Amino acid sequence: MQEERKFNFSAGPAVLPVPVLKKAQEELLCLPGCGASILEISHRSKQFGEILQQTKNNVRELLNVPENYKIMFLQGGALTQFAMLPMNIIRNTNKSGNYLATGNWSKKAASEAKTQGKVDVVWDGKEEGYVRKPTDDEIKLTDDAAYLYFCANETIEGIQYQREPNVDVPLICDASSEIFSRPVNMEKYGCLYACAQKNAGPAGVTLVVMRDDFVDMSGDDLPSMFSYKKLAEKDSMLNTPPTFCIYIMKLVTEWLKEQGGLEAMHKKNVEKARLLYDAIDASNGFYRVHGNKEYRSFMNVSFRTPTEELDKLFQEEAAKVNLTNLAGHRSVKGERASIYNAMPREGVVLLRDFMLDFAKKHA
Amino acid sequence: MQEERKFNFSAGPAVLPVPVLKKAQEELLCLPGCGASILEISHRSKQFGEILQQTKNNVRELLNVPENYKIMFLQGGALTQFAMLPMNIIRNTNKSGNYLATGNWSKKAASEAKTQGKVDVVWDGKEEGYVRKPTDDEIKLTDDAAYLYFCANETIEGIQYQREPNVDVPLICDASSEIFSRPVNMEKYGCLYACAQKNAGPAGVTLVVMRDDFVDMSGDDLPSMFSYKKLAEKDSMLNTPPTFCIYIMKLVTEWLKEQGGLEAMHKKNVEKARLLYDAIDASNGFYRVHGNKEYRSFMNVSFRTPTEELDKLFQEEAAKVNLTNLAGHRSVKGERASIYNAMPREGVVLLRDFMLDFAKKHA
Repeated sequence: MQEERKFNFSAGPAVLPVPVLKKAQEELLCLPGCGASILEISHRSKQFGEILQQTKNNVRELLNVPENYKIMFLQGGALTQFAMLPMNIIRNTNKSGNYLATGNWSKKAASEAKTQGKVDVVWDGKEEGYVRKPTDDEIKLTDDAAYLYFCANETIEGIQYQREPNVDVPLICDASSEIFSRPVNMEKYGCLYACAQKNAGPAGVTLVVMRDDFVDMSGDDLPSMFSYKKLAEKDSMLNTPPTFCIYIMKLVTEWLKEQGGLEAMHKKNVEKARLLYDAIDASNGFYRVHGNKEYRSFMNVSFRTPTEELDKLFQEEAAKVNLTNLAGHRSVKGERASIYNAMPREGVVLLRDFMLDFAKKHA
Repeated sequence: MQEERKFNFSAGPAVLPVPVLKKAQEELLCLPGCGASILEISHRSKQFGEILQQTKNNVRELLNVPENYKIMFLQGGALTQFAMLPMNIIRNTNKSGNYLATGNWSKKAASEAKTQGKVDVVWDGKEEGYVRKPTDDEIKLTDDAAYLYFCANETIEGIQYQREPNVDVPLICDASSEIFSRPVNMEKYGCLYACAQKNAGPAGVTLVVMRDDFVDMSGDDLPSMFSYKKLAEKDSMLNTPPTFCIYIMKLVTEWLKEQGGLEAMHKKNVEKARLLYDAIDASNGFYRVHGNKEYRSFMNVSFRTPTEELDKLFQEEAAKVNLTNLAGHRSVKGERASIYNAMPREGVVLLRDFMLDFAKKHA
């Protein structure tokens, strides 16, 4: 008998749409028209070629990607992009990578970039405890800036940009924990990328959307697998791509289109987040949110109860009613409810009700 | 209704054991004890921790890996290893990477390594058309050799070492298309690695087995994701690993143990290959094998008929009786039957019978 599924608030790998899982399950032994599993078919097969193309088409449609941008499916997660971006764009130039340090992930991106070239952290939220994003006025680019790098949504701290920074250089954005959660204005970006395992698919594939002039910056001395130019030239097929992960991203992007696209997802996401933040704000300080109010993430709701003991109890009691993986990241502690696209409203309502009950009992 | 599965002779991604696919299918919606899919659970969860540990244990047992070797699950395929190996081992040293160029893949490995440091191709089979491996006497290492790199089985040409080269420096081996097909003597290796999608799992994970002193060679200036030292320190969890691909490798390695381990697999593999080569040798020259007799691969049987027209017909007719993906690589042409561990003897017998019939009709 099939075991019961629980509501999974994991920050990543994270919840996927049930119809996606069911379709993948149904086809796992034999992909229609193949006589073999998606796990077994050649990346050079006609069938996989179609899967790749359809996934690209879906991404282009959902994110409204202009024609002068390449869509790539790479490996190694965001941490690999942290190195590849400066390796391709600022290494062997006299340009600087400008970075906004707004939390754990952007800080790490800047640190990895320093192995490749000149890096300037042009705003750092560390002293304030990473509770907000900078305003446009606070961002002072260097004269030699090749790009401004930022993380749209800091998964760990639960703080998110309401809109992209407004600057005069191309943006590079780590959108790992908010990709497909709302529309983006791609034309401001030199590159927008996201590891899949939060909002776009399983761990093992990274979506990279890059403007053609950025793609063309790769030095000819780079190993092939680290060169955007070579990867783009071969349409993500320089070597065997992570075929199954791309197939799941195809199913996820199809599901997103069925849901009405990113405007519709954004509306649902904001409503889900409001359920939790309203409960928090009405708790008379029992629950406290990590980030400042105007930068609260609608993807990762990071909060805490009055004590670490109550945090522990909260998580234990929640698990008993099938609300799972609510522990905050070890660096921030407390609770974190990741409520990505695939988390149904029903799960968020149950969590909200649990939170109200818990606060009543322990306030 | 479930569509019929065919016999899939693809060189990679390639056939997987049916019990592995069935187990994955059964658990895809809900991994026992998780309340969520393997695609959705955190890599930091207890359950995934156990999957990772069990996979490592299985690999250690199957390959008889000594304690002073690390077992890692990385991303980016063999092409990433082509660059990472010299980047970690010979860059910023006065050492040379010595390479045997025995076919497409080892040639490419040497070419990628040249972006990182001194490379010497100490034997090259190009003029002979990549039809064999060198004998030990033909291998003249340079005095500054840090390692001897070779490809155990050239997937495209279908030529395979009967045993590893016997030299005085540590070996680095690309075992992508023969991993787990026979026992290996790990103690001769500084590193043995394999992308999974031929004989070990799906595309998206690369198994790297590396001796501790090799792991420790990584320069401190490398980006984290390209440093074996950092990857090994975090036990393949420096960032989110390709969790699903590792899970499938766990199932494949469990299946291998149930089959009796690598001695038993080797015996079965040699028998399967003999069925095809015997038919070829008895065909009075109708079928010709690409490689020299003593280097014939028991994983990838690369052969051709008298004409390209007959090759085309062969593949078309074979597909009609559910023998699929028999086209040779575009650089070698003709046919290639990849008969990895998971290809059942039954499929090979059917192919052999088809080959005998086809030769009779068209000789």
